[in-house]
Amino acid sequence: MERQFDEELKGLSEKLLNMAGRVEESIALSIKALKDRAEGLAQDVLEREEIINNLEIEIDESCLKLLALRQPMAGDLRFITSAMKISAELERMGDLAVNIAERSLELIKHPQLKPLIDIPRMAVMAQAMVRDSLNAFINRDEKLARSVCERDDKVDCLNDQILRELLTYMMEDPETINRAVDLILVGRHLERIADHATNIGEDVIYMVKGKTIKHHIEEKKCDLNP
Amino acid sequence: MERQFDEELKGLSEKLLNMAGRVEESIALSIKALKDRAEGLAQDVLEREEIINNLEIEIDESCLKLLALRQPMAGDLRFITSAMKISAELERMGDLAVNIAERSLELIKHPQLKPLIDIPRMAVMAQAMVRDSLNAFINRDEKLARSVCERDDKVDCLNDQILRELLTYMMEDPETINRAVDLILVGRHLERIADHATNIGEDVIYMVKGKTIKHHIEEKKCDLNP
Repeated sequence: MERQFDEELKGLSEKLLNMAGRVEESIALSIKALKDRAEGLAQDVLEREEIINNLEIEIDESCLKLLALRQPMAGDLRFITSAMKISAELERMGDLAVNIAERSLELIKHPQLKPLIDIPRMAVMAQAMVRDSLNAFINRDEKLARSVCERDDKVDCLNDQILRELLTYMMEDPETINRAVDLILVGRHLERIADHATNIGEDVIYMVKGKTIKHHIEEKKCDLNP
Repeated sequence: MERQFDEELKGLSEKLLNMAGRVEESIALSIKALKDRAEGLAQDVLEREEIINNLEIEIDESCLKLLALRQPMAGDLRFITSAMKISAELERMGDLAVNIAERSLELIKHPQLKPLIDIPRMAVMAQAMVRDSLNAFINRDEKLARSVCERDDKVDCLNDQILRELLTYMMEDPETINRAVDLILVGRHLERIADHATNIGEDVIYMVKGKTIKHHIEEKKCDLNP
């Protein structure tokens, strides 16, 4: 019985890793679509949304089943309730990748405003945060979870920098306003993806320590206002 | 024993309602700060964040305790796991109210761009969605939960309208760009608050029906692009 339960928990971890992998791919594709001006890639992201959504439902139902049938205690209980929260976070990230893909489809219709450097950089950081937050969860690795939370500030700062740069573009040439606002929103979406990864990191620390450090992560150091 | 468990579930509902009430107040205050250019109100929102954060932790711990000690089945199990998700959604909304308050503090430093009408309207809609999503949860009221999900489209459309109007301002007068972008972000924050309320609505339908309608809410009808 015990061994079977361990297998079930392992299956749950694998499902979450699978879901996180797909979310990571969607983020990468949505940004590649924007960078390479590739409409097909953006469409791919839209099509992949349903798979991610279905994975959330599947994970949720697995967790409810485990809670009902296994009536787990302490560590396992926290692991399962955390898994439910994490799948919800991942699903939101999938939605944000769709939002980026939608903006990309709009931006592709117009001439490129500027070569994109910081936005793809930010996407790479956000993807690594997603990956690491999940690995921290699976391996109950508090240190890695903390590193995810700490990286959130860097993403925020990069986003502020992007915002500032785009404001300059708009002020110099009002023709760029529509495109610049779309790019600002892409930056925001990436920032929110990083926020969701940070939420997972906080959940992991909570799960591992058995007490919460949530909401006690240090304030970020860069100035938010452009 | 049974009666005591019912009392515990009732206590949990009350905590969630309390938390939701505070979130609603923070949203209202953050927008009132912006509308009335009242720095003190924005500061109030920042100070209230910790209370909301602590409520999330408290609710989370109550739920874990109920799961561990009561080992609930079926409906009660879903109620408790939904409560955990809902408190996370409420906490995110509290964060968004703080984001609005921060933007308000920035906007107050500069002359008013325009009298605000649509943003406060959007805030009122978002607040009602928060309230109704919680009432739907407490009363297991599927119909009310559906109405919350449906209203999300209206909020999205209003936000698109705000975005379009602010783009016009920016194009006509580049001096307005900084303030207009701040207002666009306020609109986004409100839109996301409505999204979180919609997530709660979807959770409630899931909980009541025992099967998921999540991700199957109809596509919204207004055009997203300005």
